Amino acid sequence: MPSNTPIIGFKTLAVATTLTLATSSQGLFTTASKVGGKYLYNFSTVPFLSELAKLIVSGTLLYQAHSKDPKGTIITLDWKNARLYPIPSLIYLVHNNVQFMTLKYVDPSTYQILGNLKIVTTGILFRIFLHRKLNKLQWWALVLLMVGATISQVSGCGNSTFSAPTQGYVLGLVSACLSAMAGVYTEFLMKKNDDSLYWQNCQLYSFGVLFNAIALSVDDANKGFVNGFWFHTIFNGYSVLTWCVVLNLAFTGLLVSWIQKFADTIVKVYSTSMAMLVTMLISAWLFGMQPNIQLLLGIVTASASLNLYYMNPLDLFPERQIAKEPSVKLDVESMKDNKNADD
Amino acid sequence: MPSNTPIIGFKTLAVATTLTLATSSQGLFTTASKVGGKYLYNFSTVPFLSELAKLIVSGTLLYQAHSKDPKGTIITLDWKNARLYPIPSLIYLVHNNVQFMTLKYVDPSTYQILGNLKIVTTGILFRIFLHRKLNKLQWWALVLLMVGATISQVSGCGNSTFSAPTQGYVLGLVSACLSAMAGVYTEFLMKKNDDSLYWQNCQLYSFGVLFNAIALSVDDANKGFVNGFWFHTIFNGYSVLTWCVVLNLAFTGLLVSWIQKFADTIVKVYSTSMAMLVTMLISAWLFGMQPNIQLLLGIVTASASLNLYYMNPLDLFPERQIAKEPSVKLDVESMKDNKNADD
Repeated sequence: MPSNTPIIGFKTLAVATTLTLATSSQGLFTTASKVGGKYLYNFSTVPFLSELAKLIVSGTLLYQAHSKDPKGTIITLDWKNARLYPIPSLIYLVHNNVQFMTLKYVDPSTYQILGNLKIVTTGILFRIFLHRKLNKLQWWALVLLMVGATISQVSGCGNSTFSAPTQGYVLGLVSACLSAMAGVYTEFLMKKNDDSLYWQNCQLYSFGVLFNAIALSVDDANKGFVNGFWFHTIFNGYSVLTWCVVLNLAFTGLLVSWIQKFADTIVKVYSTSMAMLVTMLISAWLFGMQPNIQLLLGIVTASASLNLYYMNPLDLFPERQIAKEPSVKLDVESMKDNKNADD
Repeated sequence: MPSNTPIIGFKTLAVATTLTLATSSQGLFTTASKVGGKYLYNFSTVPFLSELAKLIVSGTLLYQAHSKDPKGTIITLDWKNARLYPIPSLIYLVHNNVQFMTLKYVDPSTYQILGNLKIVTTGILFRIFLHRKLNKLQWWALVLLMVGATISQVSGCGNSTFSAPTQGYVLGLVSACLSAMAGVYTEFLMKKNDDSLYWQNCQLYSFGVLFNAIALSVDDANKGFVNGFWFHTIFNGYSVLTWCVVLNLAFTGLLVSWIQKFADTIVKVYSTSMAMLVTMLISAWLFGMQPNIQLLLGIVTASASLNLYYMNPLDLFPERQIAKEPSVKLDVESMKDNKNADD
């Protein structure tokens, strides 16, 4: 794995763009699935069905790949390996609890703003645990992506100083670290061996289905089964738009999985941060409003960040200087050769 | 003049920092010079006296330099050369009129925001008229400086979409171009020959004194001399703080002049933009308020911009790569050697 691959390949770019569009559709589908501002269905069933859909798709693809090319489709059947797959789900479980605790101290909009810290914490954990070196430019790019996302979110009036208790900020930071950890850990898992992506997905999503089913059951038990068992009423209130939410979420998950195996977590961070801005832009347009200046500034900053992160440092020298150095020229070629995804 | 000198020297850095501090003091002195929220003196006399102070200082320094080293103190006595010196004052005159026209279409806070366009227009005119090449990183840095300045200014509620008539924005852009043109032209003037800075200043400030005197007289004539002739009442209402305003403005002007001769207009742009942020930070502190999140985001963005603009592209390569290339290493040395100001 080259430690410095600033140039992103075409395939990665296509998947990342699709992820941005799918992620930004998610918020719009979710809003559209409400009737009279309310969900007529049990929203907690959405992640369960989405995990199930991903499992079915990955299982089918694994079966096809294995039928076509049994030797090329690597499947490690090993408990030592499989036991790592529930960990991302467990991290999210802890994360959700920390989120719940954080919201006791800070309001939801402050929580959303603190959530942007995960952009920088992802960079830090990416550096520490995956040993991926980022250059000075890339660190600044991550800081700017965080700033860009934040600018677009603080457009409202009122509470824009730091007035919550310190615990709130500390918990917000912990939450951002856990969120980053889940991404970085999944990348580690997907890249640790040459197993087929479909097989890795099957393991990941089996645990996803299991954990979501447990969560739904625990929820029912806490309520004393007043609404019966979730499995019997799972499709209550589902409309075509609810299915769009489920399938779009599943599609998004599969794209993220591909990106973490063949590209990296930073690509995912850029795709989802850009999606947030695209959603805000589409929302403004849907409601017939002009996007406000904060959103435009956020978009400019995020675009600057994206350009800086994937900037080839060799482009920063005057042309003649490169021409003088054939050895540096060779380096350009080796840097362009992103072995991860695009061969 | 090297076309790519990303590393700023110590002397330039010291002068630029002093300029930032002096510029940010200016707003504070000006506010402090009010009594009960009002100016008891005629504010239009401030630029006149400041130009006069700069002329006296420059004249004295020129005399001293010439006495010490008559041959080393180059003084071009030539009408062809001298006639270029009123041009900056003339550009400012046109600029002030355009500003007045713009404010018919846009409100003052929108005008202030549009004023940030001068950061990017300075880059463009710097490239076109002074043939100074900026790399991709430096262009993004200028865009980010503009964004950073703007973020900190849109912290208020209300009018933050683009709702003014188009003429307002076009005039705002013209105003930003004129403002940039004045800076770039002055740099051209200061660098076009090896004349003593003091002598160049004497010519520049003589026209400054003249134009300000004319403006004050025209103003008096328009009012039918109801308050008498300005020269007779020039010090009316002056306090120690008013003198601080005058002398600080003069000091600022002298620093800008030094920067335009020995560094460049972009250094000036960074110093004054940073000063705006420092002023806001000090104001918040003086009024016992917490700086709002927009100001902090603006400061982070502007700091990122500053770091990116003056980043050495060679720092972006892994160390071992530089070690392999002794010829590139030599280039580092030549790039560090900023011949403009620091030898």
